[in-house]
Amino acid sequence: MDISSLAPDVQHFLGQAAYCELGEFEALARAVATSPNLAVKEGLSAAAGRALSKHHGLITEIRRRGHEPATEMAPFVANLDEFRRKTSGADWHELLLSCYLASGLLEDFFIRLSDGLPRDIGPRVAQLLGEDSGTDVLVHELQTAIENDLALGSRLAMWGRRLVGDTLLVARSAMPAADPEVGPGTATEARIEPVFTELIAAHTRRMDGLGLTA
Amino acid sequence: MDISSLAPDVQHFLGQAAYCELGEFEALARAVATSPNLAVKEGLSAAAGRALSKHHGLITEIRRRGHEPATEMAPFVANLDEFRRKTSGADWHELLLSCYLASGLLEDFFIRLSDGLPRDIGPRVAQLLGEDSGTDVLVHELQTAIENDLALGSRLAMWGRRLVGDTLLVARSAMPAADPEVGPGTATEARIEPVFTELIAAHTRRMDGLGLTA
Repeated sequence: MDISSLAPDVQHFLGQAAYCELGEFEALARAVATSPNLAVKEGLSAAAGRALSKHHGLITEIRRRGHEPATEMAPFVANLDEFRRKTSGADWHELLLSCYLASGLLEDFFIRLSDGLPRDIGPRVAQLLGEDSGTDVLVHELQTAIENDLALGSRLAMWGRRLVGDTLLVARSAMPAADPEVGPGTATEARIEPVFTELIAAHTRRMDGLGLTA
Repeated sequence: MDISSLAPDVQHFLGQAAYCELGEFEALARAVATSPNLAVKEGLSAAAGRALSKHHGLITEIRRRGHEPATEMAPFVANLDEFRRKTSGADWHELLLSCYLASGLLEDFFIRLSDGLPRDIGPRVAQLLGEDSGTDVLVHELQTAIENDLALGSRLAMWGRRLVGDTLLVARSAMPAADPEVGPGTATEARIEPVFTELIAAHTRRMDGLGLTA
């Protein structure tokens, strides 16, 4: 389960992870703006703040290395914007589920990938990404809504299954072997496989925790 | 120019100022999401983070006093949501101008009003609200756009004049003398007047700084 040899270069990693957190922030900010009540709005605003703070932490790392954040993030905009568009959901609960599942899976993934970064940056980035995302409020809202509405529960279970596919594709595209010019080698695939199995297991635990069948 | 005797009670002040900063955050987050380029998006996200951090600072003060943030903010939701709706603008530049002018005027106002709060909270709140709002990026974007587009400049000058009226109404409603049951007394009005003159003067300086006629 060593993916360190698959880690992208530092700039690639930081640009992509930074834009990922910015997208998470934007999605949470939309959830804040459309929140049905003030207590939840308040909790979601804290979660949005956490995503933004992770984003700014990654931006600081980019600047520290003498690079321009906008330039480093630019290659990932089209792909990640499309991901956020596809996963924005038909209503507020679908949006919450997207925020929760995508942030969980992608942060897990980037933390794993950070193992392969140089020692002067990998652990610091892993710690930053591993900080509490403040998503307890999302879990609580989703659990309550699912308990009280069976139809919503089955719709969200479907939505969660769709999300995991789209989110894994984003993770897959973050790995150098995804370069279409080169194509994934069998050895590479063999090393990636267990990481994805792990990511899916964690995703399933999150679905279970909400009372949804993954 | 002493408005301390006009200061609302602490809970009223904190609830209103906190919801005001949350609204500023939501408006800036919308500007982030609709930003035309990545460098500006990055700068705006920092400004959104500043508004959110002021909001959370005020929430901390509410909690410290043993109150529930959602309860304290609730009385101000209808009025402030309506304000944000009216000032959201027809396009991205109008939204930026709203964010910049409203945050400038309302923060000035709440800082003035905080003079009348108890000594164990007033100065701390004034310092929090006076922290850099990160709006330099808004000023830079607006200045550049106005310099390059005369028609946009005159449209934004009109928009700025409309905004100041709506924003002053929000400020006015934050003062206890605005209670319609009581009605403003002449003595009260006489004390409020110079404060509003000051707020308008600062607004005019912000407009001038952008190259707009107030």
